[in-house]
Amino acid sequence: MTGLSGSGKTTIATALKEILHENRFFCVIIDGDDLRQGVSVGLSFTLQDRAENAFRAAQFAKILVNNNVIALVTLISPTHIIRKMAHDIVGDAFHLVYVNTPIAVCEDRDVKGLYSKARAGLIKDFTGIDSPFEKPLLPETMISTQEKTPKECAELIYKRIYSYIYENN
Amino acid sequence: MTGLSGSGKTTIATALKEILHENRFFCVIIDGDDLRQGVSVGLSFTLQDRAENAFRAAQFAKILVNNNVIALVTLISPTHIIRKMAHDIVGDAFHLVYVNTPIAVCEDRDVKGLYSKARAGLIKDFTGIDSPFEKPLLPETMISTQEKTPKECAELIYKRIYSYIYENN
Repeated sequence: MTGLSGSGKTTIATALKEILHENRFFCVIIDGDDLRQGVSVGLSFTLQDRAENAFRAAQFAKILVNNNVIALVTLISPTHIIRKMAHDIVGDAFHLVYVNTPIAVCEDRDVKGLYSKARAGLIKDFTGIDSPFEKPLLPETMISTQEKTPKECAELIYKRIYSYIYENN
Repeated sequence: MTGLSGSGKTTIATALKEILHENRFFCVIIDGDDLRQGVSVGLSFTLQDRAENAFRAAQFAKILVNNNVIALVTLISPTHIIRKMAHDIVGDAFHLVYVNTPIAVCEDRDVKGLYSKARAGLIKDFTGIDSPFEKPLLPETMISTQEKTPKECAELIYKRIYSYIYENN
């Protein structure tokens, strides 16, 4: 799941996890913020370090997929090249979900208070402010969060996952 | 699972995975060789880089544990300090299994042909040859592979996992 900070990735992933569990699918959430506290604790927010962070997430997702576990990866993953790398690592099971919340809405919510800090120049390399976000051109799923509840968004993704599993087993 | 190269860690983990699945527990194998092909592809075999590799494995294991998935980590993890770090990251769910196969036996098997290469000086920093292996002093489980089949070893670990889950839920 790609999208700006505050777009709703983690919220939707959490709702999706619940739906998957109800339907007896096993899944693991790999969350960008968690990675930053864990395996990627030393990495910065430059595009190079964001790519390294996404590389680690994708490698981990690959292990999960090889073990028949669904990996829900919530990462800003701001550029085409980062997403392509993740796709190449994970392979056919990769499914790009674009959580398309306009920056004005994310900034208005500012759940973590990061946008105001970025605007004030207190944090650097912030996606959408002084670091790029390339909108996905052909995501497998695009979600407009403004017209739907997180649960509705999650149900949409669940249908796609279900179709994929149904077609490939 | 800690132990020398060729001690049987991956073989036992694979057997254990099967037992866990039969008993409807979900698990994921995080294998040292896989990590070296994936997330840790740039790392060497110095103790420092082995620690970094173990750090990444432990951070992934922690995410799995937080998602109620059993992580079977098979890594040489040759020193006390590396194992302690992993324990500190994963927390109470950490369970150290020492796959105790004597080096003479591992070298005799030499499944991957690495011991002969290490003896010939073709590979450096090889555990047990020119890199240390500190035997665990108080592993939660110790397995002597010479007297048992991989399945018997796996059953032993399964019993410990089962007790742990039973006591903590």
